[in-house]
Formats: sequence, structure tokens, C-alpha cells
Amino acid sequence: MKAVIIGLGTVGRALLREVQERGHELKSKYGLNLKVVGVADSKTAVYNEEGLNIAEILKMKERGILNDHPNRASLTELIKGGTDVLVELTPTNLKDGMPAVRYIREALSAGKHVITANKGPLAVEMPALMELAEYNGVHFLFSGAVGGGTPFIRFVSRCLLGERVIRIRGIINGTTNYILTRMEEGLSFEKALKEAQKLGYAEADPSADVDGWDSAAKLVILSNVAFQSGVTLRDVEVEGIRDIGLENVSDALRNGETYKLIAYSDGESHLVKPQRISLKSPLNVKGALNALQVEAEISGKQTLVGKGAGGRETAAAVIRDLVELKVRLAGDGRCL
Amino acid sequence: MKAVIIGLGTVGRALLREVQERGHELKSKYGLNLKVVGVADSKTAVYNEEGLNIAEILKMKERGILNDHPNRASLTELIKGGTDVLVELTPTNLKDGMPAVRYIREALSAGKHVITANKGPLAVEMPALMELAEYNGVHFLFSGAVGGGTPFIRFVSRCLLGERVIRIRGIINGTTNYILTRMEEGLSFEKALKEAQKLGYAEADPSADVDGWDSAAKLVILSNVAFQSGVTLRDVEVEGIRDIGLENVSDALRNGETYKLIAYSDGESHLVKPQRISLKSPLNVKGALNALQVEAEISGKQTLVGKGAGGRETAAAVIRDLVELKVRLAGDGRCL
Repeated sequence: MKAVIIGLGTVGRALLREVQERGHELKSKYGLNLKVVGVADSKTAVYNEEGLNIAEILKMKERGILNDHPNRASLTELIKGGTDVLVELTPTNLKDGMPAVRYIREALSAGKHVITANKGPLAVEMPALMELAEYNGVHFLFSGAVGGGTPFIRFVSRCLLGERVIRIRGIINGTTNYILTRMEEGLSFEKALKEAQKLGYAEADPSADVDGWDSAAKLVILSNVAFQSGVTLRDVEVEGIRDIGLENVSDALRNGETYKLIAYSDGESHLVKPQRISLKSPLNVKGALNALQVEAEISGKQTLVGKGAGGRETAAAVIRDLVELKVRLAGDGRCL
Repeated sequence: MKAVIIGLGTVGRALLREVQERGHELKSKYGLNLKVVGVADSKTAVYNEEGLNIAEILKMKERGILNDHPNRASLTELIKGGTDVLVELTPTNLKDGMPAVRYIREALSAGKHVITANKGPLAVEMPALMELAEYNGVHFLFSGAVGGGTPFIRFVSRCLLGERVIRIRGIINGTTNYILTRMEEGLSFEKALKEAQKLGYAEADPSADVDGWDSAAKLVILSNVAFQSGVTLRDVEVEGIRDIGLENVSDALRNGETYKLIAYSDGESHLVKPQRISLKSPLNVKGALNALQVEAEISGKQTLVGKGAGGRETAAAVIRDLVELKVRLAGDGRCL
């Protein structure tokens, strides 16, 4: 399978390293013979139909530039060339999803399968992109867009086969969970936020996390998967954690409860806001963990807890999609 | 798809009700056109190649007997007759897995697919049964044998595609978790056990639960799925919760820990025994909940929490397997 990777940030480079180290295993175990024929960072695209030398690409990226590579090409050559699948890993943009939306549209329209770990394009126009993929008869997978390596999407779409999901609710942003956990331990919002920034959980501009937009973007994706609700970011009611305050956190604790930034969807209503939950709830997970509770019609409430982020973890989710794509294309009725 | 159901206890009857109520939905949504051609309880087998009247069967069972049914048959006719799949739901027997092992062997050997929610035959000879299914080119599914409606097996086998599971550990018996939760709240083991019996969590003879054998049986199944370890019950080191004592439970609490009956497997070692875990661990779930932590090579620790039992919930797991069987047999590369 020929792949091009656009975006060589933390996840893109982790993916290249995994492919380099585990290529043989992926081939022997799943029949996935992956050949990376193109890569692009924000400045340079490189393409070679025979397959690129991954070690060389990684070494060039360590020095900061792909500029010296002999096989420079245009992004259009990468996307519309001889590749089977576009792996889209550019930075997240929750405003208009660009440039990822454009790359994904171009690839799907050119009959290429697409894998992304980028919630931006999905938050902004997931229903349209799904339709475009279906129209062109190609697969569009995005395991890594929610929860890093924790398979929240796959859990919702696969594990509860045969019964209806009634509602989903959970903590799908690790930064705010870390801050709220530290506030439980007595730190002010400001101090907890600074600590989260120091630990690399929060960005210099923390608004996407603390104001709830990162959660909302992931909720859009989960809601579309669970309910085929056809929603985008504008359908979500969003409130962040800035105004909770230490007094409320303490008051909750005295009552056996704790504040969490909860994302909720039942297919009709979609909201992200701080809520009190019982200290005994399986959703009461600590630190930067994520937790999603799926309520199924018959088998009831099921909660999946895991790390919600990480470059290598997200790369593992992309590999999961590559293996799944391989299995789907084999079309031999074998389901993994 | 023609099915026979052997075993009309809580799960079997719940399954018949689900098929009756949701038959239309299963057909329209998944293309699963289920026809129940045979049923059997511990005394009587009934068979009709044209399909049985489910309402009539349920009504007869309410009165306690199938004896009056006009279409009485032998179990062999049910198993080797015109059915596509045997749904095996007889009572659990952890000693030798009988009579379930015999029914399953007969069906697999006759080229029938088998679905079971019975951990007995799997605990006793899962590797041999898997081999027999493969040899005969038929499917053998058992979602409902672990965790009631919570898809622990499916999570382990499907959700972490593309990476290696390193170890699994968790609470896979609700009765002991309920007892330990109540002991945390100050009750003695004996009182907590009585309460669990009153609530219907524990049997009159509680030894399968409190001595760890129920957990061990489920661990065998999960370990075989996660690691293809080829184990049976005799490979598991088992210790129950009778000897923990209130003092130890209190001591653990003072140190920010709690006792849980933990089942563990890394593919080499397989054990069930009481262990102290942190109160902050995602495995610290209360009451009769189950929780399984799967540690994957790259994406790390992931914990799935849910109810571990229930007739209707387990019936939902059997339906999940029926839908999966339908999808596999369609063999059109569509994976659900």
C-alpha cells in the first residue's frame, strides 16, 4: 500500500519511526506492506514513486529542513499521484479546518483513501467529508482524531454492534481534567493552568482547551459516529472551566462530588460544560486521563478510560487505521 | 439464518424476547433474518424447520414446561438438523464443562457455527474448541461469556488492532467487587456476602465467586483472545477473598489503597488473587461493576468499565455475535 504523509510534527515523525521499526511486523502479521512514497512538512513536499528512505527523511527533519532532498515535488503531485492513501497530520485549525480540509477534499475527489488524526477538518465539516468519501467509493478513517491511542471512536462504532447507543458523555480533554484534578487538591485555576503548561499538557494559548473547544471538536466526531447526527462544531453548546472557582470545587468535594468538563450528546443535544459528578462514578478519573461513557440500549453504561493524547499513541491509532484499511480492501470477509 | 437455542434460563428467555421484539430491526439494520428453528431446556427439545412460534415457547416456559409442544424432537435433531448456528446457553459447569462441551463439539463437527455465553466449556477446553472450529471452517463466538453486555472480549480482540497487548488485569467478577466495596464501608465479609446473596449477586453456594474460580474462567477466555496463550482453567493460579479480613481492608484505606480481586495475564503467567490498588486507579470501581485494564504496547493502559452480568445484557452480547456472524458470512469486506 502506497501512502503519503502530510504534516511532519510530533505525530507525523512518530508515525515514520513506527513504520521504520515495525514495517516487517505489519507485513507479516496483517499483510500490510506499507510504502511511504511522499511526505510534506509546512514548507516542502518530497515524492518518490519507488518509496522514500524513511531514515533519511527523519534525519533531515532533525536538522529542521527537507529542503535538501533531491525528490522535491508539489503537494498536488503527492495527493493526486500514485498514492493509495493520504495520511493527513497537519496542525489542528478549529476555525475553518484549513489547510487540512482542502487536502482531504482533493484526495477523496481523486479517489484516494484518507486517514487523518486531525480533528480540525472533522469538527468543521465532517458530514460533508463523509459524504464525499462515500460518493467516491473510498474509505475515510480518523481513529487518531479523538483520544490519542485510546480507541474511543472504534469502541463506539464497533464494540456495541447490534444495539442502539442512547447517549455518550465523558471527559475528552486531558488538560482541563488535569487542571480540575489539581484544583481538587487546592490549587487555584491560574496556578493549575501554569503547571499544566509547564508539563506540556496545555499550550501557551490555552483557550482551545480551557474554553471547551477541543472537547467540542471531539464531541462532534463521536456524535457523528454514534448517532450519524450530521453535526459540526456550530451545533455544540460550549462552556469552559475558567469560571468554576476553588470555592465551588471545595463545595462539591464536601458533597461527595467533583467538577469535570463533561461533553454530552444524545444525537439531538450536543453540549460541553462543567458538571458535578459523583466521586464514585467511573468517570471520576484523575490527572490528564480521558474517560468516555457510552450508554447502550440494553447493555447499559460502559466507560472507557485512557490517555487522551501523545504523539506515539496517536501514531498507533493511525497505524490501526492503516491496518483496518488493508483489511477492508482485502474484502475477504475477514474482520479484525 | 436458522438458529437453535439450547438452554432456556434467564439468558435464553431474554434472548427469545429480544428476537421477538427486535427481529424487524435486526433485519432492516443488519440484514439479519433470524429464524429460531429449535429450542431446548433441560428436559425437552422442540424443533420445527419452518421456524418456531417464539411467543408460544415463552408462554409455555412461563408455565414451566415445554412438554406440551407438538414438535418435540431429540437434541441431536436440533444440533445436526437444518440449523446454521447453535446458540449454547446451558448452565455453567467449571468442572468438566458438561454438557455444553458435548453440544458444542457435536455442532462444530457437524459444520455448524456456534455462539455461546457459557464460560464453562471455554474454561475447560477453549484451545481445543477453537481448533475444532477452525478445522471445520466454522465460526465460534462467545462475546457473552465474559462481562455480560460489556464487550470486554471484543475490546481486546478488535479495538487495539495493529499493536501488541502486553498484559491485561482487572476485576471480572461483580460479586466479589460488591463484597469488597461493602467491606470498605465497614461490613464484615460474612455480612457483605449475605447482603450480596439477598440482592441476587451471589449464589446460595458462593464459592465459584468468592474463591476466584469465576474470575479464573473468564481470565482463561480473555488470555486466549489477547495472547493466543492456549490456556485452560488448570493453568491459572487462584486465590479468593475469604481471608482478606476487615483489618487489612481498613489498613489499605489508610494508605490510599483498596483491595480488589484482580485477574492478571501477560500470556505467560495467569493469576487471580486479591491485590491492593490505588484509590485513584481507574480500576477502583465500586459495587458490582467490572473493570478490565488492557495495556497495549504503544497506546498504553486502557480501562473498560461496565456491568459484568445480567440476563438481558448477556442476551445483547449473543445478538452482537449473531450480527457479527451475519457480517462475516456475507463476506463482502464490510466490517462492522
